[in-house]
Amino acid sequence: MPRKLHLNAFLMSVGHHEASWRLPESDPYASWDVKHFQNLARIAERGKLDSVFFADSPVLQGDPGRRPAGKLEPTVLLTALAAVTEHIGLIATASTSYNEPYNLARRFASVDHVSGGRAGWNIVTTAGADAARNFGLDDVPAHRDRYERAAEFVEVTTKLWDSWTDDAVIADKDAGVHADAAKVRPINHRGRWFRVDGPLNVPRSPQGWPLLVQAGSSEDGRQFAARYAEAVFTAQQTLAEAQAFYADLKQRAAALGRDPDHIKILPGIVPVIAATEAEAQELDAELERLISPEYARRQLAERFQLDPADLPLDEPLPDNLPTEDEIEGAKSRFTLIVDLARRENLTVRQLIGRLGGGRGHRTFAGTPEQVADTIEDWFHSGAADGFNIMPAVLPSGLTAFVDQVVPILQDRELFRTDYEGTTLRDHYGLPRPVNSLELTTV
Amino acid sequence: MPRKLHLNAFLMSVGHHEASWRLPESDPYASWDVKHFQNLARIAERGKLDSVFFADSPVLQGDPGRRPAGKLEPTVLLTALAAVTEHIGLIATASTSYNEPYNLARRFASVDHVSGGRAGWNIVTTAGADAARNFGLDDVPAHRDRYERAAEFVEVTTKLWDSWTDDAVIADKDAGVHADAAKVRPINHRGRWFRVDGPLNVPRSPQGWPLLVQAGSSEDGRQFAARYAEAVFTAQQTLAEAQAFYADLKQRAAALGRDPDHIKILPGIVPVIAATEAEAQELDAELERLISPEYARRQLAERFQLDPADLPLDEPLPDNLPTEDEIEGAKSRFTLIVDLARRENLTVRQLIGRLGGGRGHRTFAGTPEQVADTIEDWFHSGAADGFNIMPAVLPSGLTAFVDQVVPILQDRELFRTDYEGTTLRDHYGLPRPVNSLELTTV
Ligand SMILES: Cc1cc2nc3c(=O)[nH]c(=O)nc-3n(C[C@H](O)[C@H](O)[C@H](O)COP(=O)(O)O)c2cc1C
Ligand SMILES: Cc1cc2nc3c(=O)[nH]c(=O)nc-3n(C[C@H](O)[C@H](O)[C@H](O)COP(=O)(O)O)c2cc1C
Repeated sequence: MPRKLHLNAFLMSVGHHEASWRLPESDPYASWDVKHFQNLARIAERGKLDSVFFADSPVLQGDPGRRPAGKLEPTVLLTALAAVTEHIGLIATASTSYNEPYNLARRFASVDHVSGGRAGWNIVTTAGADAARNFGLDDVPAHRDRYERAAEFVEVTTKLWDSWTDDAVIADKDAGVHADAAKVRPINHRGRWFRVDGPLNVPRSPQGWPLLVQAGSSEDGRQFAARYAEAVFTAQQTLAEAQAFYADLKQRAAALGRDPDHIKILPGIVPVIAATEAEAQELDAELERLISPEYARRQLAERFQLDPADLPLDEPLPDNLPTEDEIEGAKSRFTLIVDLARRENLTVRQLIGRLGGGRGHRTFAGTPEQVADTIEDWFHSGAADGFNIMPAVLPSGLTAFVDQVVPILQDRELFRTDYEGTTLRDHYGLPRPVNSLELTTV
Repeated sequence: MPRKLHLNAFLMSVGHHEASWRLPESDPYASWDVKHFQNLARIAERGKLDSVFFADSPVLQGDPGRRPAGKLEPTVLLTALAAVTEHIGLIATASTSYNEPYNLARRFASVDHVSGGRAGWNIVTTAGADAARNFGLDDVPAHRDRYERAAEFVEVTTKLWDSWTDDAVIADKDAGVHADAAKVRPINHRGRWFRVDGPLNVPRSPQGWPLLVQAGSSEDGRQFAARYAEAVFTAQQTLAEAQAFYADLKQRAAALGRDPDHIKILPGIVPVIAATEAEAQELDAELERLISPEYARRQLAERFQLDPADLPLDEPLPDNLPTEDEIEGAKSRFTLIVDLARRENLTVRQLIGRLGGGRGHRTFAGTPEQVADTIEDWFHSGAADGFNIMPAVLPSGLTAFVDQVVPILQDRELFRTDYEGTTLRDHYGLPRPVNSLELTTV
């Protein structure tokens, strides 16, 4: 069977472009309106996409004066989408830095039950001091510590998901035996970050484990992904960088004894689609005009750990930027942005325009054919197993992708014409995890 | 307008009776089947009940070998019920001892948005060392500390819910102003238990605050309820005790300057309904026969902080029980159970039978008329503002209540014949909280 693309719809507010809410077509209250997202999930399902996905951080991100910053908690939102869809996978981000494994394990297992096996967890460590300050801390924990905690968090969570075997429940009414007690077991985890007895209070879910997704690309992030992730979201500006990232991650996974085909790599793309290339570029330019440069400059300065005054709008980036080592927040995104600005010799204002659409993700303005071409090109050049589709404007950008680009990809036999399995793992072609407890009780 | 009853359906597995799963009619896998609960919520809505409710503890409760112990996380479950109902209120329990206020505030606010203003939070402090051992602790925190943390938790949570005014979002597209920045404010909470900056990342929800419910009846529990709760679930075995509890709680609320009518008191009742009293008693006896006494004895011993061997099945409770002061778990339930056994001179075996249905809640076996009579009696005797209906067997016990008891209560003009408002607060006749931030910005 020829290799097929995997497509995820990354949904956010009324679009990934920070100014999308200012377009006449956009409902500025949609960010916390469940009907908006139910509509989007149905559109994505009509396009047979593998999954929809929500980013998250436990903090009010960005300036609520400037853009729709309020939103719904993603596991709640996923559950509401499960009720109105049948096939599409449902991936929510949750932080390992500001949650407890027991709480998160049961919540994702519950979403997996409720959705009939369609849940996925995007595992993030949450950059940013502002989030830390909602949880009793003064500053963000060190990058290394965050990833160390994340690894132990995932170990605990997966052990909890394995704390019931698939066949634990017997339901022998006559004998009054509900489950086989030997098949529901404490995990008695004792680690540096967590002590958790278990067992979980949710029986093993349809997928065994919800799909494990990861989205950080620093050195520690890659190593974490290579060990645990089954799908990886990543921001890549150029084909060469994407190829290098792809090869690196597959190789790291193989070195850890994993099948490199069991880690799917999905670079982000912000498709701006119109009937002609010129119209697509005009739409892109219109969005860029609606950006508030002062606000965007503050955000950039924060990312660079600088003062906004150090970034004159019509000059190139200053020379005295910190190095990636000195960044405690999102390391890989920092480097990507600096490289982009230097490579293309952009002023701060130009850089802000380039980041407005996808915060560092690649924006591609063109016709449906052109979008399909670049997707096919990257897919066949060892740069991607699929894509994270990040429409600049929602719902229109998703509708355009589903109705105009997906049929081209289907004609080229690059993408499914219907769902073949029932679970998110089925869609991504990933195996159901064997239960570690099952192995020990055989 | 004559005073009307408030009715909540307390849903749990296939019924509150611990042996209900062993009946031929029961689906032993239903405890984690969202369709089972969606069916129950629709039945309750058909009966115009105020709300459905789920208990919770972040631990596998009870012996999974003996009864269906696995279940779904309640905020996920509520969201799934919101999608298939239109009117009924949705109340989930969550622990203040094992959550972070920021996470919980946004989750309940999100459920309130998704449900159009139908969310309620049953605030509990979680008794039991086993739950503590899922969160890095060796033992349950002291009862006093749990309630102190709970009070600060609610303060933080309600401040977060008030961190956006209702009219904060302006959505001025031309000016590029999404929200009025003065109307989205940090809370900068600094307390003994929590430091939380805020603001919340969810705009103020339809109800302002989800309904605050409470369910502990110890001295500390009552004082907490008097201060914060808008609805109180309680276990009361006799009319006299219920009257005393009712008067005490209303008086405490008034002493704190609250309108006593804004705290609704709902004792639990386990109605076992049949066409004749004899048939109802036979159903009750059948359930009692299905109890596993050894298992129930272990549970009782744990509650009493004793060894099971100290509780011979055919003898009365021993004299050397601890006092309520010595109990670090659920204090008021301990006292209720000891009082019940002593008052009625029950052996351990008989006590186990009496607790099988409602774990200390009052079981009432009778005809629909008799159930309606006792409800009316307590309602008119200053013992209750309504009831927490805890069917011994689900769905049949709920169906019987809705189709046979509710019409009698409606005929007597004790209960609504249709929903009059749209939110959970509307159903309970409770006001929407004024936003404390709004007050300071006027
Ligand atoms: C598509 C995509 C989505 C992401 N979503 C989130 C998110 O929702 N929350 C979050 O804290 N980090 C998210 N990240 C990761 C951050 O961008 C950042 O990479 C991370 O905090 C740490 O990454 P590092 O390993 O590069 O330092 C996402 C990354 C990508 C590529
Ligand atoms: C109807 C009802 C439901 C309750 N549900 C829970 C629950 O879901 N989780 C929980 O920890 N405590 C729950 N409780 C409270 C406990 O029974 C116990 O009262 C509490 O842990 C502490 O109460 P205390 O103040 O009496 O010590 C509930 C109580 C009642 C009356």
